[in-house]
Amino acid sequence: MEKLKITILGAGSSYTPEIVEGLVHESEHLPVGELALMDSDPERLRVMTAFCQRFLSRLGSSISLTSTTDRREALCGARFVITQIRVGGNTQRIQDEKIPLKYGLVGQETTGPGGMLKAFRTIPVMLSIARDLEEINPQAWIINYTNPTGLVAEAVTRYTRARIAGLCSGGLFPAWSAAKALGVPAEAVRYDYVGLNHLNFAYNFTVCGRPVRPEEFDRIAQAAAHGPISADLIRVLGLVPSPYLQYYYYTSQRIAEVRRQGRTRGEEVLELEKEVFRAYADETVDAKPAALQKRGGGGYSQVALGVMKAIHNDQEKTVIVNVPNHGALRGLPDQAVVEIPCIVNAAGIRGLQMGEMPASVWGLIAAVKNYEMLAVEAAVSGSRETALLALLAHPLVRDVDLAVPLLEEMLAANRAYLPQFFQ
Amino acid sequence: MEKLKITILGAGSSYTPEIVEGLVHESEHLPVGELALMDSDPERLRVMTAFCQRFLSRLGSSISLTSTTDRREALCGARFVITQIRVGGNTQRIQDEKIPLKYGLVGQETTGPGGMLKAFRTIPVMLSIARDLEEINPQAWIINYTNPTGLVAEAVTRYTRARIAGLCSGGLFPAWSAAKALGVPAEAVRYDYVGLNHLNFAYNFTVCGRPVRPEEFDRIAQAAAHGPISADLIRVLGLVPSPYLQYYYYTSQRIAEVRRQGRTRGEEVLELEKEVFRAYADETVDAKPAALQKRGGGGYSQVALGVMKAIHNDQEKTVIVNVPNHGALRGLPDQAVVEIPCIVNAAGIRGLQMGEMPASVWGLIAAVKNYEMLAVEAAVSGSRETALLALLAHPLVRDVDLAVPLLEEMLAANRAYLPQFFQ
Amino acid sequence: MEKLKITILGAGSSYTPEIVEGLVHESEHLPVGELALMDSDPERLRVMTAFCQRFLSRLGSSISLTSTTDRREALCGARFVITQIRVGGNTQRIQDEKIPLKYGLVGQETTGPGGMLKAFRTIPVMLSIARDLEEINPQAWIINYTNPTGLVAEAVTRYTRARIAGLCSGGLFPAWSAAKALGVPAEAVRYDYVGLNHLNFAYNFTVCGRPVRPEEFDRIAQAAAHGPISADLIRVLGLVPSPYLQYYYYTSQRIAEVRRQGRTRGEEVLELEKEVFRAYADETVDAKPAALQKRGGGGYSQVALGVMKAIHNDQEKTVIVNVPNHGALRGLPDQAVVEIPCIVNAAGIRGLQMGEMPASVWGLIAAVKNYEMLAVEAAVSGSRETALLALLAHPLVRDVDLAVPLLEEMLAANRAYLPQFFQ
Amino acid sequence: MEKLKITILGAGSSYTPEIVEGLVHESEHLPVGELALMDSDPERLRVMTAFCQRFLSRLGSSISLTSTTDRREALCGARFVITQIRVGGNTQRIQDEKIPLKYGLVGQETTGPGGMLKAFRTIPVMLSIARDLEEINPQAWIINYTNPTGLVAEAVTRYTRARIAGLCSGGLFPAWSAAKALGVPAEAVRYDYVGLNHLNFAYNFTVCGRPVRPEEFDRIAQAAAHGPISADLIRVLGLVPSPYLQYYYYTSQRIAEVRRQGRTRGEEVLELEKEVFRAYADETVDAKPAALQKRGGGGYSQVALGVMKAIHNDQEKTVIVNVPNHGALRGLPDQAVVEIPCIVNAAGIRGLQMGEMPASVWGLIAAVKNYEMLAVEAAVSGSRETALLALLAHPLVRDVDLAVPLLEEMLAANRAYLPQFFQ
Repeated sequence: MEKLKITILGAGSSYTPEIVEGLVHESEHLPVGELALMDSDPERLRVMTAFCQRFLSRLGSSISLTSTTDRREALCGARFVITQIRVGGNTQRIQDEKIPLKYGLVGQETTGPGGMLKAFRTIPVMLSIARDLEEINPQAWIINYTNPTGLVAEAVTRYTRARIAGLCSGGLFPAWSAAKALGVPAEAVRYDYVGLNHLNFAYNFTVCGRPVRPEEFDRIAQAAAHGPISADLIRVLGLVPSPYLQYYYYTSQRIAEVRRQGRTRGEEVLELEKEVFRAYADETVDAKPAALQKRGGGGYSQVALGVMKAIHNDQEKTVIVNVPNHGALRGLPDQAVVEIPCIVNAAGIRGLQMGEMPASVWGLIAAVKNYEMLAVEAAVSGSRETALLALLAHPLVRDVDLAVPLLEEMLAANRAYLPQFFQ
Repeated sequence: MEKLKITILGAGSSYTPEIVEGLVHESEHLPVGELALMDSDPERLRVMTAFCQRFLSRLGSSISLTSTTDRREALCGARFVITQIRVGGNTQRIQDEKIPLKYGLVGQETTGPGGMLKAFRTIPVMLSIARDLEEINPQAWIINYTNPTGLVAEAVTRYTRARIAGLCSGGLFPAWSAAKALGVPAEAVRYDYVGLNHLNFAYNFTVCGRPVRPEEFDRIAQAAAHGPISADLIRVLGLVPSPYLQYYYYTSQRIAEVRRQGRTRGEEVLELEKEVFRAYADETVDAKPAALQKRGGGGYSQVALGVMKAIHNDQEKTVIVNVPNHGALRGLPDQAVVEIPCIVNAAGIRGLQMGEMPASVWGLIAAVKNYEMLAVEAAVSGSRETALLALLAHPLVRDVDLAVPLLEEMLAANRAYLPQFFQ
Repeated sequence: MEKLKITILGAGSSYTPEIVEGLVHESEHLPVGELALMDSDPERLRVMTAFCQRFLSRLGSSISLTSTTDRREALCGARFVITQIRVGGNTQRIQDEKIPLKYGLVGQETTGPGGMLKAFRTIPVMLSIARDLEEINPQAWIINYTNPTGLVAEAVTRYTRARIAGLCSGGLFPAWSAAKALGVPAEAVRYDYVGLNHLNFAYNFTVCGRPVRPEEFDRIAQAAAHGPISADLIRVLGLVPSPYLQYYYYTSQRIAEVRRQGRTRGEEVLELEKEVFRAYADETVDAKPAALQKRGGGGYSQVALGVMKAIHNDQEKTVIVNVPNHGALRGLPDQAVVEIPCIVNAAGIRGLQMGEMPASVWGLIAAVKNYEMLAVEAAVSGSRETALLALLAHPLVRDVDLAVPLLEEMLAANRAYLPQFFQ
Repeated sequence: MEKLKITILGAGSSYTPEIVEGLVHESEHLPVGELALMDSDPERLRVMTAFCQRFLSRLGSSISLTSTTDRREALCGARFVITQIRVGGNTQRIQDEKIPLKYGLVGQETTGPGGMLKAFRTIPVMLSIARDLEEINPQAWIINYTNPTGLVAEAVTRYTRARIAGLCSGGLFPAWSAAKALGVPAEAVRYDYVGLNHLNFAYNFTVCGRPVRPEEFDRIAQAAAHGPISADLIRVLGLVPSPYLQYYYYTSQRIAEVRRQGRTRGEEVLELEKEVFRAYADETVDAKPAALQKRGGGGYSQVALGVMKAIHNDQEKTVIVNVPNHGALRGLPDQAVVEIPCIVNAAGIRGLQMGEMPASVWGLIAAVKNYEMLAVEAAVSGSRETALLALLAHPLVRDVDLAVPLLEEMLAANRAYLPQFFQ
C-alpha cells in the first residue's frame, strides 16, 4: 500500500502534536510514510521536531519524521499540505485585538478590523505557498486552518489554481449542540448551513433523517446558547448562529466585557503558549502537555483528518468547507467563498445546493462578504483606498470618522509584515 | 381633448399647493378637468380646499376643484391618485425621531427604526387604498410620495396588483450636483444609479453622452458633498451617495449633532406647519406662503408631474423610480423593490438593466434591503418577532440589547396607529 | 432492529423479481419485515405474488409477503414505495412508438411525442399516489422508476409535497464505460453529469480522484460509443452522452433503422413479457426465468437499492437523481427537474452544484426542458393548446404541419387513459 | 451648430441611397457636414458616389460627399459609422442558400447553416473595423445592419470595446401589424419583445398604454400572419413571432416551397441588383430607381436614423437593439447578445428588464443562442470542431450525418473568404 507524505507548514505551532496524534490514530485509513515539519522559525521547529519524535515513539508509530526550514523542499511530493501559519505571531494578534478597542470597536483575531489586518499579513504568504504548489506539486491539497480561513480560501481560489480545503471546526458546533440537547450521537444530526467562516447559521435540523420538532429545536437552542447569545435569540432567528455572531448581535456587551477583563485572548494565549512550549522543550516530556487543553481549537484536527481520509480513500463525506459559491447560495457572487456543506471525495470538494439564504440573515451575510472581497483585494494590491472601502463596508466599522484613523494606526502597527502597503 | 381627473389623498398636506401650481403650469401637457382633494381630517381639508380655490383663481386656472372625506368617491374615475398621507401626523414622527436617540441610535423619519415605525403606521392604509383601486379603478396610477416610499412600493407591489409609481426627488440630486459643478444643464447629465430609496449611489456620469473626466468627477464630488459627507468620501467610493447615507457613514457624528441641537426635524416641521397653515387659513391669502420654502421637499412635484406627463402622453422618459427588481440589480431578490432608472411611458414603468452593483456598496444595500423586506412583512402581519428580526437585520440597530427594549417602547408609543400589532 | 415495510406499486411488472432478489441480498443493510405487492390487475398480481413467494422460499428469506389491490392499504406504514406502473400497458406503448413514425418522427417510449403521451397517461396516476402519501404517510419515500421519470418527478415535486427519488439507471452508464475502457472498478470513476433524464452528458472524468488524460478519454469514448453514437462524436463534444441522444444526433438514421426493422421495441417486449409471464405462472418455477435477461433495464434495482440503503442507514452516497434544479444548473428555472449528481442520506436528496452546463449542449438541454415543463402542465390541465405548445417546443417535432395532426391522432389513440383531455 | 461626419462602410451597397435620402430628410435633427462613402470595390464606389452626388443635388442638400477606398481614412473623425458590408457578395449568398438545400435543410441568408457561413465570412472583417475604431476613434458608434446582425454584435461586444448598435428593422414589424389591425398609429403601440435577431417574439401589446383585449390580439394575429405563419399559430403561442420563425415552425413546407420555386432569394437579388446598378450608373438618373422597391429591407434606414438622432440629441427613445444580455432575459448568459427593447440616448444603449421569457419559447431561444455563441467562437478561431459543434447545436441541423459533410462542403465553397479556417 502506498504511503503518503504529509507536510505541516507552520509546524512550530502548538497545534502540531494534535495532528500527529490524529495521524497515528487514523493510520489505518490514512497511511503516512513521511511527516514533514516545516517552520520559518528554526528554534520552534527544532523544539517541536524533537517533541514530536518523542511523542511518536511513545505512541509506537512508524511514521518517519523530517524537518526543514526550506519550504519548497517540504512541499515536494506531499499529498497534503497542512497550513497553520501565524504571520507576526501572537504579538501582532494582540495589536489586532487592542487597536480597534481604542476606537470603541470589536477587537478580535478574525472578526472585524483585527481579522482584516491578519488577512493582510497572511494572504501574501499563503499565495506564495499556493504558487509554489502550482509549480512543483499541483495535485497536492492545501489543508488550511490558518485564519481568517474564509479570506485565505478566497485569495487562493481567486488568484491561483492550487487545490485548497478551507476548514474550520465551527461547522461541527451545531451537531454538538443538537447531540447534547437530544441525547443522540453528533453523527445522527444533519442540518442546512449557510454563510461565511465565523458568520454562519445552521437550520433545518434532522435526527436520523427526521426533522426535529419545535420543542426539540428549543432544546437545541438552549444547548447552543453561548456567551451572550441566548436561546431566545436562536428561537427568534430560527437558526443556530456561529458563536462569533456574538460580535454582531451583542456588540456593545462584548466590547464592554473585553474592556472589563483588561486582557485580550491573544495575551492569554501568549502566556499559555509559553507554558506549553516550556513543556515541549523539556526532553523528558513525550505526551501532550495539560496546558494544551486551555489553548482550544481542538476540533480542527478532527475536521482535517476527516477531509484527508475522504479524499485519500475516495469515501463520500459531507463536510462544511469554505468554497467558491458558484450558485450554491443565491444572491452572492460566483467567486465569493462561502462556508457551506460540501461533498468531499477523491475528485475534490463540491458544494451542495443551499438555494435561498434564510430570510432573517441574508443581508448581514452579504454585507460581511462585501467587506471580505474588498479586504482580499486590498491584501493583494496593497491599496489603502481599497482597505478603507473594506472597513466602510464592514458592519462593525462603517463610520468614516473611525475607519480613517483606525486604518492608519493598524497599518503602521503592522508595517514590518505588510510590504505590499509600504513600498 | 379628454380632460383628466386627478385625486390627491392626504390633500390636507402643506405640499398640496405645490402640486396645484405644477398642474396649472403643465396644463398644456397634462389637461386636468377635475382635481379631487381628499383627506381624513375634515378641518385641514376644508382649509386647504378653500385656499386651493383662491390659488387656482389667482392663477386663472379652469381646473374644477372637488373635496371629499370619502376615499372611494375620490378614487372613482381618477387617472392618477397622488398619495401624500402621514398616518399619525408630525406628532408621531417626533416619536420616531426621539425614541431611538434614547438608545444611542439614529432617530430619523425614514432611516433606521423611525422609518420602520412610520412604515408600520402607513403600509396598512396604503394597502387599503391599493385594494380599493384594484376593485373600482384598476387602470389608475398611484403616484406615491408618502414615505418610506420604498417600503410602501414594496408592500403595494407584493400584496396587490394596483399600479404604483414609488417616487422620490432624490433621484435628481446627482444631476443637480453635476450641473452645478460643471456648469451644464441638469438635463445634459446622465448616470447609473442603484440601491434603495434613501440608500442609493450614482456613478458613470456622462455629460451630453461623454463620460466625465476624473477631474470633472472631483468637481462633482465637491458639489455633492453634503453635511458630513465629504468630497473625499465620494472620491474614495467613486460614487455619489444619497444625502441619507450620512446616517450610515457618519453615524456617531450625526447622533451627536442631533443631540447638540436639542430639537428634531419633526419638531421644527410641526412649528413650520402651524405657521404655514395659519397662512392657508387666512382668507386673504391666495399665494404660496413664504414659510413653505423652509418646509423642503420641493423636487417631489417636479418628479411626479414628469411621470404623469410621460404616462399620459406616452412620452419616453427616464425617471428614477422604486420598482420590483426582477433582475435589474444582480444579487437582490426578484420581488425586492429597488430604486433605479426606469423608462416611463403609457405602458407603464420598466427598470433598466444595471447589472452588478458597485463593488464598494452592494453589501450595505443588501443588508438594508433585508431589513426592508422583514419590515414590510411585519407591517402587514403585525408579528413582533418579525419586527424584531427587522431591527436585528438593520445595520443601524442589530444589537439585541438595544433592539428588544427599543421595539417595545416604539410599538407602545404608536399603539393607537398599529391595530395589527395590538389585537 | 426495526424492520421495514416496503411497498411495490405495479408489482405485476416483470421487474418485481429483481427487486425481490436485491432485497434478499441486501437484507443486512436494509432489513425488510414486510414486502407489500400491489397492482390494479388482480390476475397479474396473483401470479406474481405466488411466484415471489416461491422465489423467497428458495432464497431462504424471512421477508413476509403481502398482496393487495387496495392502494391505500399498500401505502400505509411503508418506508419506501417503489413505483413501477405502466398505465395502458405495452399495448399503448406500441402506439407511442408507431404513430410518430407515420409522420416521419421519432417513435420512442420516453423520447419525443411518445414520451409525452406516456406522461399524459402516467402523471395523473402518480399524482394521485403522491397525494395519498401526503395524506396518510408523508414521511415515506417514493422510489420511482416509472417512465418518463424526469416528467414524473417534475409533476410530483411541483404539485405535491410527497418525497420522491426520481431514478434511472442511466446515471451509471458513464461509469461502466470508463471502467471497461480503463480496467478499473466502476466505483473508482467519478464525473460531472448534467441534463435531464435520457438527455444527459457526463464529463470531467476522474479515476481515484485523478483527472483522466486525453488518451484515456479517447478510450472512454470508444467504450461509450453506442449504436450510431460514435467515439468521434463523443470526442468532439468532449462529453459522454446518454444513449438516448442517438434520437437527437442521428435522427434520420434512427427512424430509417426502426422502419427497416418493421417491429418496435414495444412489440418485442410484449412478446417477451408473455414468455416471462408463462414462466412466472408455472408453479414449478421458483427462479428468475432466462427470458428476463432480454427484457433489459436491470441496473434500476441496483440504483434503487443504493438509494434506499443510503436513506435508511444515513449513509452518504452520491447518486444521479432527478431533482428540482434550484440553481444547480445555471440557466434553467428553479422548479425544473434536472438529472444531476445528488448526495443522498437520511435527510433526503440534495443536488450538487454543477454551475455552467457545457458550452456545446446547454441549448439542447434547455429546449427539451421547455418541452418537458409544457408537457407536465398539459398532463395535469388536459389542455390541448398546452399539449400543442409542448410539441412545438420539442426539438424532435417543432413543425406545425406535423404537430397538429399528430397530437389529434395520439390523443384519440389514448382516449381511454386520458380523462383530463376528454371531459 | 456642430456638423457631423457620418461614414458608410460598404457604401457600394444598393441601400446607400436610402440612407442618403433619410439623412437629407432628417437634416434638422441630424446635421451632417460630411458623408464619407467607403467601399473596397472601387468601381461600385465610383458609380455610387456619382449617383449620390446627383441625388444630393436634386434634393438640394448641402451635405459634402467624400469617397475613399481607405477604411481608416473613412473612420477618422466619424460620429457614426454605418456598416453594410457583404463579404463575398451575393454570389456567396447563393451558396449559403443552395448547399444546405442539397441536404434537405433550410438554406437561408441568416437562418440556419447559411447564416453561419455568412457569419464566418463577415465577423473577421467587422472585428477588424471595430479594432480600427478602438484605436483611432473610440467614441464613434458603429451603426450596424450587416447581417447576421446578432452574431456580428456578439463578436464585436465580446472581442472589442468598440461601441455598436446592432440593428434590424424586424423590431418594428409587430407595431406595423398591430397598427394595421387596430387602425392606430404604429407609434401608439408598445409591446414586450424577447429573443434573438430573426428569432424573436412580441407580446403584452398595449395601445396608448391600454392592454389590448383578446379580440384585438386576434386581429393583430390576423395582420401578423405571414407566409405559412398562421393567425392560429400566433393565437396558440400568444406571441407574434418574427417572420423568420417560419423556418422553424414550418420547416418542411418552407424547404418544399423553395425547391418548387427553383430559384433562391439570392439569385433574385443578384438580378435585381444588376438592374438597380444599371440605373445608378446612368448619368441621367438622379432619383432612386423603381427596381429598388423590390429589393426590400427599407425599414432599416428608419431604425438607423432613429438611433443616430436619439444618440446625437440625447433624446430618449425605446428601440429594439441587439445588446449583451446582462440579466435582461433570465436564463441566458450575461455575454449573450439578445434582441430586446433598449433605451437609447446620448449615454448609449441600455436594455430594459424583460425577466422571464415566455413559457412557450424560451427553450428554442436558448437552443439557437447556443448555436450562435459557438458560431461566433468558430468564426474567430477558425476551429472546424467548434464549427461542427455549432451545427450540432442548431435546431435546424443537429443530425451528425448531415452536419459533417455539410460543413465540409460549405467551408470549401467559401475557402477564398475564410483564411481563419484554411491556414
